[in-house]
Amino acid sequence: MSANRQILFASRPSGQVTEANFKLVESPIPTPGDGEFVVRNHWLSLDPYMRGRMDEAKSYAKPAEVGQVMVGGAVGEVIASKHPQFKQGDFVNGAFGWQEYARSDGSGVRKVDPARTPLSYYLGVLGMPGVTAWMGLLDIAQPKAGETVMVSAASGAVGSVVGQLAKIKGCRAVGIAGGKAKCEYVMKDLGFDACVNHKAGKLREDLEAAAPKGVDVYFENVGGEVLDAVLRVMNPFSRIALCGLISQYNAVEPYGLKNARSFLVNRIRLQGFIVTDRMELWPRALEELARWIAEGKIKYRESVAHGLENAPKAFIGMLRGENLGKQVVKLV
Amino acid sequence: MSANRQILFASRPSGQVTEANFKLVESPIPTPGDGEFVVRNHWLSLDPYMRGRMDEAKSYAKPAEVGQVMVGGAVGEVIASKHPQFKQGDFVNGAFGWQEYARSDGSGVRKVDPARTPLSYYLGVLGMPGVTAWMGLLDIAQPKAGETVMVSAASGAVGSVVGQLAKIKGCRAVGIAGGKAKCEYVMKDLGFDACVNHKAGKLREDLEAAAPKGVDVYFENVGGEVLDAVLRVMNPFSRIALCGLISQYNAVEPYGLKNARSFLVNRIRLQGFIVTDRMELWPRALEELARWIAEGKIKYRESVAHGLENAPKAFIGMLRGENLGKQVVKLV
Repeated sequence: MSANRQILFASRPSGQVTEANFKLVESPIPTPGDGEFVVRNHWLSLDPYMRGRMDEAKSYAKPAEVGQVMVGGAVGEVIASKHPQFKQGDFVNGAFGWQEYARSDGSGVRKVDPARTPLSYYLGVLGMPGVTAWMGLLDIAQPKAGETVMVSAASGAVGSVVGQLAKIKGCRAVGIAGGKAKCEYVMKDLGFDACVNHKAGKLREDLEAAAPKGVDVYFENVGGEVLDAVLRVMNPFSRIALCGLISQYNAVEPYGLKNARSFLVNRIRLQGFIVTDRMELWPRALEELARWIAEGKIKYRESVAHGLENAPKAFIGMLRGENLGKQVVKLV
Repeated sequence: MSANRQILFASRPSGQVTEANFKLVESPIPTPGDGEFVVRNHWLSLDPYMRGRMDEAKSYAKPAEVGQVMVGGAVGEVIASKHPQFKQGDFVNGAFGWQEYARSDGSGVRKVDPARTPLSYYLGVLGMPGVTAWMGLLDIAQPKAGETVMVSAASGAVGSVVGQLAKIKGCRAVGIAGGKAKCEYVMKDLGFDACVNHKAGKLREDLEAAAPKGVDVYFENVGGEVLDAVLRVMNPFSRIALCGLISQYNAVEPYGLKNARSFLVNRIRLQGFIVTDRMELWPRALEELARWIAEGKIKYRESVAHGLENAPKAFIGMLRGENLGKQVVKLV
C-alpha cells in the first residue's frame, strides 16, 4: 500500500448524518519530523460524541473542521519514529483520526499491550468508553449495594459496562435498549436483572415493572423522551450521571423535557460529565476494568465494520442504534 | 375574641388557585391536653411550596388534606401550656396552619426571641426562606469569589437573600425578576450588580448582557422558560441549586425544557433540595444570617397582608409574583 487513504469531514449535517457528509481521499503516507512518529492504524473507534463535533454549536470540544480528516480515536502500530518515547513496533492509542496512517507528536497518546487483550479493547472497555462507564457510575453516582441502577443504551460500549459494574457492586442492574434482541443480549449475555425495550410503546409501565423499587442511580446516554420517562421513576435522593444524549444529536428540534419537577421533588443530583476532564482517574479505572475482565466479571462485545471506506456507513448505523456493543472499524 | 377563625383547604385547584379553593370557618379556641400547648398566631407565612401541597401528585411532603386547616408556618405566643418545654409567654415558630389559634405537641417547633428582631423575621430571613437561601447557595452551590451567581425570583423571600449572600462572598450577583420595579429594588436596595426583567421580552439577550462572563452558579426558584434561557448562559463546571419551580406550580401542562444539552456540554451539576432535609445545618445558617443582618449586610423586606381572611388573596397574589420580598399575613 503506497497511499494513505483518509476520510475527510466534507460538510456539516443538518439533522441526520449522511454519507455525503464524508469524502474518501488518498494522500502520501506521512513521514515523521523531529519529535514525531507515524502510526499505522489497525482499528478505528466510532463513538456517539463524534456527532457533536460535526455541529458548529459550542460544545465541550471545538467543532471538527470541514475539509480535515474526520476526528476519532484509533489503535495501531508505530512504523517510523523520531520521537524519544515511541519506537517502531510500539502499539499506541490516540486521536489519530479516520485514516490508515497518521503522524503524531505523542500528545494524548498512550502505549498499549497487544498481548494482554485484543488490540481493539483499548478503544472500548479498556479505553474511553470503559473509563466513561467507570467514572460516571463509580465516581459520580456511587451506587450502594442493594440500590437499583438504570442505564440507557444498555447494549452499547458504555452502557454494557455500566450494568456489569452495577452487578459487581451488588446492585440491581436495569437496562434500557432499542429492540428485543438488544434486551435479550443485555439480560442473557451481560447478566442485567431486567431490560426495557424503549421501542415497545409502553415505556412508562415497562420502566415501573423493571424497577419496582424505583431508580436510585440513572446513567444517561440517550436523553429526550427516555430521560423524561425515567424522571418519573427516580427515587428520593437519587443521582443521574449524564454521559450522553444520543437521541438529540441528530435532532433538528430538541425534545422538550416535561418532568423537571422530579429533580426538585426527589432532590435529584444530576451531573453532566466528560471522561477527559478527570484524567487522574484513568489509571485506577483501567486497572480495575482489566482485573474484572480477567476475572470474567465483565463481558465485552464489538460490532466490527471492515475497511476504512465503510466507516461512514457504520457511524451512521451506530447513531441509529444498529450496533450491539462497541462499534469499531478493522483496517488491518 | 371567643372563636378561632380558620381557613380550610376546601378543594384542590386545577391550574390556577382561586379563593374558592379556601373556606373561612370558626371553631372554639382549643385547649391544651397533656404534653400540648396552645399558641396564638401573630404572623402567618405564605410560601410557594404550599402550592405543591395543594396538588394530589407525589411530592416531597404528603398532599394537604381537603377539609383540613390549610398548612403553613406561623409565629405566635404560647397562651396556655401543659407541655414541659413550652410555657405561657414563650414565642414560637412552627407549622401552626392558617388559623388564629393552634394546638401543638411541640413537634418541629422552635422558640424565637422577639427582642432580637421583629417577630415576622422568623418566617423569613431568620426562618425557612433564609436558611433555604443559605443552604442552596453556600452548602450546595459553593460559589467562589469572582464568580457570577444568578438567582431567579430575586426580589422574593429566598432570592433576595441569595443575592446578598453572593455579594458577601465576593461574587457578581445577578437577579431575575418579573417587572421593572422589582429589578430596581433588587439593584438599588439590595445591592445586586444587575437584574433581568424576564417580562421584558428579550430574555436571552438580557441574560447575556447581565452576565457577560456567563453564569457559574444558578439558584433556581422559577423553572420553565426562565430555566431554559439560563441554561444557555451557564459556564463549564457550573452548579445549579434547584430550590423551586414556581412558574410550573399553577401550570396544567408543564413547560418542555429544550436546553438539556447544556447539562452535558457544560458538565453542570444540578441538585434539587429541600431545606428540611438537612436540619443539622440550620443552627449555623441562622447564626450567620443573624450576624449579617446585625451588621447591615443583609437587608430584608416584607409584603404584609392584614387579617386571616386576606390570606388566600395574598397567597394567590404571591403565586402571580405580586409581592416584593417575603409575603406574610399579620394577625395580631
